[in-house]
Amino acid sequence: MQAKSFDLITLGEIMLRLSPPHGERLVRGDVFHKTAGGAELNVASGVSLLGLRTGIISKLPDNEIGTYVKNRIRFVGVSDDYLVWDSDPGARLGIYYYESGAAPRKPAIVYDRKYASINRLSLQEVPEQVYADTRMFHVCGITLALSEPLRELTCQMIAKFKNAGAKISFDVNYRANLWDEDTARKTIQRILPIDILFVSEETSRRMFQKTGDLHDIMQSYCEEYGVKMVCTTQRTVISPKKHNFTSVIYEHAIGKFYTEAPYEDIDVVDRIGSGDAYVAGVLFGLLKYASPQKALAFGNATSAVKNTIPGDLPSSDFKEISRIIKAHSVQGLQSEMDR
Amino acid sequence: MQAKSFDLITLGEIMLRLSPPHGERLVRGDVFHKTAGGAELNVASGVSLLGLRTGIISKLPDNEIGTYVKNRIRFVGVSDDYLVWDSDPGARLGIYYYESGAAPRKPAIVYDRKYASINRLSLQEVPEQVYADTRMFHVCGITLALSEPLRELTCQMIAKFKNAGAKISFDVNYRANLWDEDTARKTIQRILPIDILFVSEETSRRMFQKTGDLHDIMQSYCEEYGVKMVCTTQRTVISPKKHNFTSVIYEHAIGKFYTEAPYEDIDVVDRIGSGDAYVAGVLFGLLKYASPQKALAFGNATSAVKNTIPGDLPSSDFKEISRIIKAHSVQGLQSEMDR
Amino acid sequence: MQAKSFDLITLGEIMLRLSPPHGERLVRGDVFHKTAGGAELNVASGVSLLGLRTGIISKLPDNEIGTYVKNRIRFVGVSDDYLVWDSDPGARLGIYYYESGAAPRKPAIVYDRKYASINRLSLQEVPEQVYADTRMFHVCGITLALSEPLRELTCQMIAKFKNAGAKISFDVNYRANLWDEDTARKTIQRILPIDILFVSEETSRRMFQKTGDLHDIMQSYCEEYGVKMVCTTQRTVISPKKHNFTSVIYEHAIGKFYTEAPYEDIDVVDRIGSGDAYVAGVLFGLLKYASPQKALAFGNATSAVKNTIPGDLPSSDFKEISRIIKAHSVQGLQSEMDR
Amino acid sequence: MQAKSFDLITLGEIMLRLSPPHGERLVRGDVFHKTAGGAELNVASGVSLLGLRTGIISKLPDNEIGTYVKNRIRFVGVSDDYLVWDSDPGARLGIYYYESGAAPRKPAIVYDRKYASINRLSLQEVPEQVYADTRMFHVCGITLALSEPLRELTCQMIAKFKNAGAKISFDVNYRANLWDEDTARKTIQRILPIDILFVSEETSRRMFQKTGDLHDIMQSYCEEYGVKMVCTTQRTVISPKKHNFTSVIYEHAIGKFYTEAPYEDIDVVDRIGSGDAYVAGVLFGLLKYASPQKALAFGNATSAVKNTIPGDLPSSDFKEISRIIKAHSVQGLQSEMDR
Amino acid sequence: MQAKSFDLITLGEIMLRLSPPHGERLVRGDVFHKTAGGAELNVASGVSLLGLRTGIISKLPDNEIGTYVKNRIRFVGVSDDYLVWDSDPGARLGIYYYESGAAPRKPAIVYDRKYASINRLSLQEVPEQVYADTRMFHVCGITLALSEPLRELTCQMIAKFKNAGAKISFDVNYRANLWDEDTARKTIQRILPIDILFVSEETSRRMFQKTGDLHDIMQSYCEEYGVKMVCTTQRTVISPKKHNFTSVIYEHAIGKFYTEAPYEDIDVVDRIGSGDAYVAGVLFGLLKYASPQKALAFGNATSAVKNTIPGDLPSSDFKEISRIIKAHSVQGLQSEMDR
Amino acid sequence: MQAKSFDLITLGEIMLRLSPPHGERLVRGDVFHKTAGGAELNVASGVSLLGLRTGIISKLPDNEIGTYVKNRIRFVGVSDDYLVWDSDPGARLGIYYYESGAAPRKPAIVYDRKYASINRLSLQEVPEQVYADTRMFHVCGITLALSEPLRELTCQMIAKFKNAGAKISFDVNYRANLWDEDTARKTIQRILPIDILFVSEETSRRMFQKTGDLHDIMQSYCEEYGVKMVCTTQRTVISPKKHNFTSVIYEHAIGKFYTEAPYEDIDVVDRIGSGDAYVAGVLFGLLKYASPQKALAFGNATSAVKNTIPGDLPSSDFKEISRIIKAHSVQGLQSEMDR
Repeated sequence: MQAKSFDLITLGEIMLRLSPPHGERLVRGDVFHKTAGGAELNVASGVSLLGLRTGIISKLPDNEIGTYVKNRIRFVGVSDDYLVWDSDPGARLGIYYYESGAAPRKPAIVYDRKYASINRLSLQEVPEQVYADTRMFHVCGITLALSEPLRELTCQMIAKFKNAGAKISFDVNYRANLWDEDTARKTIQRILPIDILFVSEETSRRMFQKTGDLHDIMQSYCEEYGVKMVCTTQRTVISPKKHNFTSVIYEHAIGKFYTEAPYEDIDVVDRIGSGDAYVAGVLFGLLKYASPQKALAFGNATSAVKNTIPGDLPSSDFKEISRIIKAHSVQGLQSEMDR
Repeated sequence: MQAKSFDLITLGEIMLRLSPPHGERLVRGDVFHKTAGGAELNVASGVSLLGLRTGIISKLPDNEIGTYVKNRIRFVGVSDDYLVWDSDPGARLGIYYYESGAAPRKPAIVYDRKYASINRLSLQEVPEQVYADTRMFHVCGITLALSEPLRELTCQMIAKFKNAGAKISFDVNYRANLWDEDTARKTIQRILPIDILFVSEETSRRMFQKTGDLHDIMQSYCEEYGVKMVCTTQRTVISPKKHNFTSVIYEHAIGKFYTEAPYEDIDVVDRIGSGDAYVAGVLFGLLKYASPQKALAFGNATSAVKNTIPGDLPSSDFKEISRIIKAHSVQGLQSEMDR
Repeated sequence: MQAKSFDLITLGEIMLRLSPPHGERLVRGDVFHKTAGGAELNVASGVSLLGLRTGIISKLPDNEIGTYVKNRIRFVGVSDDYLVWDSDPGARLGIYYYESGAAPRKPAIVYDRKYASINRLSLQEVPEQVYADTRMFHVCGITLALSEPLRELTCQMIAKFKNAGAKISFDVNYRANLWDEDTARKTIQRILPIDILFVSEETSRRMFQKTGDLHDIMQSYCEEYGVKMVCTTQRTVISPKKHNFTSVIYEHAIGKFYTEAPYEDIDVVDRIGSGDAYVAGVLFGLLKYASPQKALAFGNATSAVKNTIPGDLPSSDFKEISRIIKAHSVQGLQSEMDR
Repeated sequence: MQAKSFDLITLGEIMLRLSPPHGERLVRGDVFHKTAGGAELNVASGVSLLGLRTGIISKLPDNEIGTYVKNRIRFVGVSDDYLVWDSDPGARLGIYYYESGAAPRKPAIVYDRKYASINRLSLQEVPEQVYADTRMFHVCGITLALSEPLRELTCQMIAKFKNAGAKISFDVNYRANLWDEDTARKTIQRILPIDILFVSEETSRRMFQKTGDLHDIMQSYCEEYGVKMVCTTQRTVISPKKHNFTSVIYEHAIGKFYTEAPYEDIDVVDRIGSGDAYVAGVLFGLLKYASPQKALAFGNATSAVKNTIPGDLPSSDFKEISRIIKAHSVQGLQSEMDR
Repeated sequence: MQAKSFDLITLGEIMLRLSPPHGERLVRGDVFHKTAGGAELNVASGVSLLGLRTGIISKLPDNEIGTYVKNRIRFVGVSDDYLVWDSDPGARLGIYYYESGAAPRKPAIVYDRKYASINRLSLQEVPEQVYADTRMFHVCGITLALSEPLRELTCQMIAKFKNAGAKISFDVNYRANLWDEDTARKTIQRILPIDILFVSEETSRRMFQKTGDLHDIMQSYCEEYGVKMVCTTQRTVISPKKHNFTSVIYEHAIGKFYTEAPYEDIDVVDRIGSGDAYVAGVLFGLLKYASPQKALAFGNATSAVKNTIPGDLPSSDFKEISRIIKAHSVQGLQSEMDR
Repeated sequence: MQAKSFDLITLGEIMLRLSPPHGERLVRGDVFHKTAGGAELNVASGVSLLGLRTGIISKLPDNEIGTYVKNRIRFVGVSDDYLVWDSDPGARLGIYYYESGAAPRKPAIVYDRKYASINRLSLQEVPEQVYADTRMFHVCGITLALSEPLRELTCQMIAKFKNAGAKISFDVNYRANLWDEDTARKTIQRILPIDILFVSEETSRRMFQKTGDLHDIMQSYCEEYGVKMVCTTQRTVISPKKHNFTSVIYEHAIGKFYTEAPYEDIDVVDRIGSGDAYVAGVLFGLLKYASPQKALAFGNATSAVKNTIPGDLPSSDFKEISRIIKAHSVQGLQSEMDR
């Protein structure tokens, strides 16, 4: 399996993120910070930073803004081999505007992603060799939700990856402003069974009408749909700038739940992308060590630390995450800084 | 009454505020952020953002700095119809330099407002029609304190607004570096009775020598001076960056005190102007709904959220404040962000 | 005629302009400067800065980005009375990305304006009283080009303004990336005759197939289409950062051509919007003084100085333009700075 | 004479300079660059950078803004030993707002310097030992112009320095917005004779009613008023961003005029302070080498290079100026950069 | 003793500190904030800000970067009289890159200080008069650790200062990445006895193998090595951004321990340099008042407040520290801001 | 030959470039812009931007600064497959500080590159397969000059690439501050013959003692040393901010000189790296089209446009360069901007 070129391939929209400087507001000010982001890019980048080889399938406008995004993708360590360029006069990159919150004011987010080039991606534009060259394929519910054509393409692509022997990872990542729960549930059922499912407890209860405790719920996905592993995060919001975080992973083959003590008092600088960072950590743990316990440790650490970083994209490499995992497992007093 | 052109007219000095970037100090650094601010402008802007029509009477130097301030006034939704321009060679805009605090260091504030153009404003320069065209007039103690001539003009203007049938709102806003308590009390007594009085408990006890509990004190203004409504804020400073906030409103006509649970754990980014934001919320509630309960809810919410915004001026519109009021009234778990 | 509330009303799209800092490139860097711009907003703002009352009819998304643009419109002195808000889920503000050039590299411009809210503006959303309350209406060819529905609406609106007795000003402002010359010519012919036509010599020759010298061409619009006044700019590009600029105005009633010596060696900082600034100066001269000679002087000066200002929007008021006109008319040595 | 502690002492106002970033305007934008400046501080700093020991007598408000200025004074190498602190409630630092020009737009400058603390400086506040400890004293016409009390103090101080044996240098530096030519001329005549006079040809002709060619004029100051050396700069403004510069020095003792070829095509970034930089270069040449030829070379070079630096204050040290002087004297091709 | 020119002279490396803006990371971003820093410079600057005369002995590269550091040294109030310039082709300034932490991510620090010019400083380059002209000499363990030649020079310099009658202050400031505990202990024993020793409890236990409670440990330095006064800080890290801080001082002559209640809930913005600020406050208290109780109060206050300031260098003057000490000693409610 | 993985591999030092913002100076200011740069990286990046596959062999410190550089390398399109990591405690990245010039002030450049990790690179650290997988290898004289061990390694590497059949490209790029002309000439003679030589006319005359006209000189390298192609740039410095540029290429096989008209009036924003951009354009032309005429056109265009871009690295892709080449070849009037 090591002979495959890519450890992880993802598929998804990449957006331009525009946000005012620290503390400023969208309705005022003269400056935006610009970055690129997107759920699947965040995942691919996180896995890449930890040391594996990843790529993303996406479609970008064939202009300077598309080039900027390509440069950013490369900057964060993800291959641009499977980017497709859109030369249509209506080609555009989706945008989202994001403003941080401060209690009692919530973060503000304005999406302008309709008509983005990703929705015009076709299966023919993606080189056939990607399917055989990839150990794992990951995608999330946002990509299924964006448009009817993209939904079909995603389902077909999942089938092709399955056929080629790649593992399939899926993060439900439900967004009420993109589609309704009914459509979401039915679409997701189409792509099951899969190898790894990321789903929140709230979504399980509301969209999938699950009942019982969290362990019951996680188990039920494996029993009903043949999912092999289920991961659910547990975030406690103490205040907009202070969270606790941990997660549970269930491995159906041996019927085991993996847990660990939460990261406490996380200094939340930018919460966007911390869910994707979690996925990245878990997938890295599975791809590298084939160990759910390692996956849990990496997932919790990458997610905890992502909260402290501005922008969607993770920026922690293997050394940093390893230090954080080690510090998290240690009891008692620790040095503030190593020097 | 709806036929009047302005829901609210204020009178006051507008200053240039210069502050170093996040965390920097006045005595160092190469950059100042520039904004405009002033107690009454803050109030007018807050009411305007919520959807009513407001203006400010002020005098600005007839140069580029005055023009900048005019542009800012318009940017924040306040009419520039009653700005008066000062072409005197000594014309100047007052300035204040402001540096944030961090425990145990307090914020630093340096005023350079002496000789500002506002002190040369005369009654003749203000078009006569403003009095009849206005539903409510608001001013605060700072304007009374700035100079002898401005004090006289303010008293005369209040009289003219009263005659024309406008409601009068006054915020004591005592500043020890501008005048002494004795002069302040005597001057304020000259302008009573009024419709709405904003006064802190501390000022009531010290300047007006009030005793008893807060309810006794608030009632006494109505009984002694014929004030119709009294509003007093209640701020608890947990740390320079973490406050609780609520307020009490007393309506004398029906002898009723309005209260609600405090906003807790407010993330204080910039506390300046949060008192003015409170006044804005209350006046909006009264002007729009004629309801002290609504006034309380709007006042508490606009003030709480202003603390999270850099600069003197509020920036929350009706939609944002309504969301915050709604969230404040809900029990139990809430989503972090709506998307 | 002075009794009308607005000296000038315009109709057009307002876009968010995003540009990298001085010398940086779209494909790199972490920051965008944000401003609002649009041909007709630029014109309205220019006229407003010179002292007349203006407004703009446009449609903005009902979100924070729309609010930002509204605030900017007010900041630049233009009334927001005729803004219409778009609450559609697909509501969006058009964007354009702009990067300065430096010889031999041209400026780069990326438009992302398709599907913008302006294209969903309907006649019913614009209050009827605007037609009677306005002295002059201005629109440009871009608005006709953006979409079929907007084209129809614009033609109908011009008809309604004509009926109500407003003067009509039109700037051809041909953009090859929006429509072809044939469609453009035919559409423009539908709205003729008008009072003031702005058209470049190049467009006259190519789109309208005009021949002869510039004077012949300008005259022909009046003879063929009943236009009363024609204005044509004359820009000489010495280098991307150094231009000369003047213009010619033809008044058909008396058959007279107005000209003056060019502004030479203009330091070009940002050329975008200098054509609109020219229109603003000319319209101001006509609205204020009813003098084509004054219109020429103001148009040339506002356009020349706009080149030296970053952003689309003019920022020169009456005092500044008057000083520049005066200096331009003086022979011999001048002081560098007045102090 | 080497035993004296200070090579140069100056007296003058130090102001806070606030200017928008590159290309921005005073009437817009969110940021000011802050620096300190003042004609005599610029001179002292320039001499200090070249390697001599200098100080400035001035009065600053006893607050954070005063402290900032003190820190800047030290940063630029000037002693703060003779700064006097103003604790008056009205204590303030003068401000000036400065915006760069670009053809055909001139730079804009707004002064807010009235009532500044410097005007309350008294002779008693300045330690007596300064007079004997100083080789040369320099002041300019602005200091004489600011206020009546400061004018008297300056005249007395000049007398005390003369008595103590210090050389006296004076730069006329006429500013029409501070005083009229008549008062200026009479005041200046009171302080004559002096050792070194800096005066422009235009001022000589207008204020002093001088006639004849430049050489005649320069000589006449020596003959009429007993001045020992006269320096006159010669600036040619090709465009706001491109100047030529040289100067003439006349040494009366030997009746000799010193000249050199102009610096051509100077890239003007910020012209403010280039006159003071000239004075600094000349005084350095005289103090260090007692050579008018050296003084001319240093004056021309420091002035030419100051034009290329943002801010009032020079920033070139002896090494840089020496390189520039050397390059200026060389014929033929030169390397662009040394590496 | 007051007749000496310098109250405090220090010796140490000064580095360029490069750090990304608020919240950004070293591995990304386009900008570094630049400042100068170094343990002994921080101490000297802190003492100078409080009102005494200080200088630093160091060696800087003779280029623009060295000049920048010299300017900064002067900006922070420290004399540049004893700076030595390095013209060697390999002359360089040490650099350190610093990135703030946010829980659970620690601050990151990358040193690039090897081969810095300071290591080539020789005793001959330091003017002999410094020893007699100085009341107190301070140095820390980092300077001993940097290189073998610098260690020798430091030991010799301490001997010369002792001979000349200066008090000696030493801060152990152990850095494991520079040397091992064994070498450190032996080197430090060479320089004992001294007048004031700063040492942490952890270092005492690990490097000096001390046992017993803190008071025993502190006493033992005096008994074993003849140290006259020992100071130990006590920091409690609640979270990376929230600390408590106090200290203990032991005066051996009278066998007394000085303590006070900790500063609680300090808002930690930048922790680097807070240990040096403590030393500065203590030394100021001793030099100015010869009072360990005052030294304790100043040390605790300067250290507490330094945590709230970005950059290594303190920026609090006597007025600010006095206000903080006063507020710390007061019971009950305090005003948030003085205005 | 198309089967090889890399079109171009380079070897060289990559440095951190720190430069103050537009117009600021190294000796002042609070901010540095950070980028990565190095002659061979610039070349590789330029070729990559034009569409070919490139990589760089270099050694970076194994810390956050090294990671930043790796991210930048990927951002600019160059493979990081052959980066070697240095974990030595003395591992460091070379730095250079750069400040723009403005007439008459030259740019300032301070190198701090001694002891950089690149000098510890060994042949064993570079995977053997690189030699066979590469179509062309490029290196420049700086790499030969940096240190004795690096010089030996470079010579051996050239030999290995030659053996493996790669074309060899060499740019003399003489830097007087790194080595003397004698050593340079002898070292360069060791690596000859090569396929493509870049050498300036000045270096040819001084270092190689060439005489005759430029054509004679270029030819002589082929005749004496067996070089197959020689390229010499021709830059005319009109002013620091205005250059002309063209070049000559000599192809020995057919004895032909290729030339074209210069790019005139180039707006020079940042000249650093324009020589490397030239090399990139030429190598692209040769690798892609095997046409010296195309190589000349691409080289001249990439170099001309690089001058207008801040930072060392080129940022122009194939589309942009093609537009510029086309515009350069056209006679007569051109549009300012395409829209």
